Amino acid sequence: MTSPLAGQVQHSVVRYRQGEHVRTGDLLAVEEPLEIRVQWEADGRISRESVSITMRTPGADFDLAAGFLLGESVISRREDIVDISYCHEEGEPQPFNTVTVTLAPGLTFDPALLARHILTSASCGICGKAALDALQIRGCRALPPGCSVSGTVVRGLPAALHAAQPLFNLTGGLHAAGLFDTEGRLLSVAEDVGRHNALDKLIGERLLHGAVPLQDTVLQLSGRVGFELVQKAVLAGIPVVAAVGAPSSLAVELAETFNLTLVGFVQPDGFNVYTGQERLAA
Amino acid sequence: MTSPLAGQVQHSVVRYRQGEHVRTGDLLAVEEPLEIRVQWEADGRISRESVSITMRTPGADFDLAAGFLLGESVISRREDIVDISYCHEEGEPQPFNTVTVTLAPGLTFDPALLARHILTSASCGICGKAALDALQIRGCRALPPGCSVSGTVVRGLPAALHAAQPLFNLTGGLHAAGLFDTEGRLLSVAEDVGRHNALDKLIGERLLHGAVPLQDTVLQLSGRVGFELVQKAVLAGIPVVAAVGAPSSLAVELAETFNLTLVGFVQPDGFNVYTGQERLAA
Repeated sequence: MTSPLAGQVQHSVVRYRQGEHVRTGDLLAVEEPLEIRVQWEADGRISRESVSITMRTPGADFDLAAGFLLGESVISRREDIVDISYCHEEGEPQPFNTVTVTLAPGLTFDPALLARHILTSASCGICGKAALDALQIRGCRALPPGCSVSGTVVRGLPAALHAAQPLFNLTGGLHAAGLFDTEGRLLSVAEDVGRHNALDKLIGERLLHGAVPLQDTVLQLSGRVGFELVQKAVLAGIPVVAAVGAPSSLAVELAETFNLTLVGFVQPDGFNVYTGQERLAA
Repeated sequence: MTSPLAGQVQHSVVRYRQGEHVRTGDLLAVEEPLEIRVQWEADGRISRESVSITMRTPGADFDLAAGFLLGESVISRREDIVDISYCHEEGEPQPFNTVTVTLAPGLTFDPALLARHILTSASCGICGKAALDALQIRGCRALPPGCSVSGTVVRGLPAALHAAQPLFNLTGGLHAAGLFDTEGRLLSVAEDVGRHNALDKLIGERLLHGAVPLQDTVLQLSGRVGFELVQKAVLAGIPVVAAVGAPSSLAVELAETFNLTLVGFVQPDGFNVYTGQERLAA
């Protein structure tokens, strides 16, 4: 399920260094739009709807689509998907930018219920609390206790993630999400110009392997941690999320609500634990 | 037009450093959803539609709304907006998360034409090229030549931007966008958990001051540069965009198409110029 489009591209660049400048070549992370469509059957009729257009780095597009749909609660397990394919028409200049996901028969889908819309309300009552409530209404449950990871393992995650990022080392322009077991062994890695896309790709890949919920795993992120990233982790059942950067307030609140261990500012000599400290072994 | 919600919040944290850990306090960047609604008049009828829900750091919400609408080509100048206000209803737990922008009478608005939708097509022909074409169809023009900035000024921008970031120094978790004149003097700065929000806030603030198009200015970004950020700069008329991080492929293509000078990897000792080198003075 690899993408036919390249993740990087060569471009000429002028490097300025201390008054001097030289024209040379540089590798850029590729960014192209991806449209995700959902096809489903209801009352004997087949429907199809575009549910997302995101600017992404080509590669692992089927993973991205699967992960996106899990994060939006459209699906909850591997079996909910019967097919993922590129929508390829002859003569198209870029045939690999639209992916159609066909849902299993009997699975109900209401496009109006995507997360984006759930946040909306008729009155002015939109707030972070409503976003948390919406997750609970959608059947999202607190992560079970258990799963223990040592501080030594956590401190080594950024270097392990960086070593596993093939494109970043070439372009310097990509976010990464890496999934590790509690001993710090890499299970899967994904890269993208967008942090959310990288995580969608990672979770989607695991889901397509039938590995969701992702019990006893640690997620390492290359950047900062906002609400939506923690939301995706909760929905995928990941108990520990660690990041090189800072978490936002709502990310911490969400982690607390769903009993997720949230770790920020991970460096070789230390890190900060915001919630769920009980999963950190001495 | 400042927001009544705070941009940071205190949270307890456990700091792990070399085997030791202590519980202490930490400041987090606040993240809350913001809903942007547009109200307009057509054929004697007043309509209102929700056009965006974004997770943002509270503060400069009216700027964010104005900048967002400019970036989506809903408006093009200060006069297109007659009012911006919070939609505040009694008893709401979070009354400052919905903003309504009222458009000037006579201004036509079709919610179906927002950029998100423009990218969609009936067939599978979605691609970066289509995104560029869509901008041209929307009347976006190439930036005029002229406006010259020295390499010395560019190299100093990240430090100047960092010094102007009040919240980042407290939370460590915020992206920033800063607008400078060609001598490196700060004109305006905005922060947010989201890079796109930070830029929308910055451009919106300038727009609300009647300063758009932003001729003879240099935009400095704290992170990487994707398509949407360059798009916002082009629509606001900013001729030079510099960033601490890497640009994506489509960002470079967009900058080339609209004659924008794009600079990446800005550090005290140098930077890379991807497009529009003629605006760099020796």
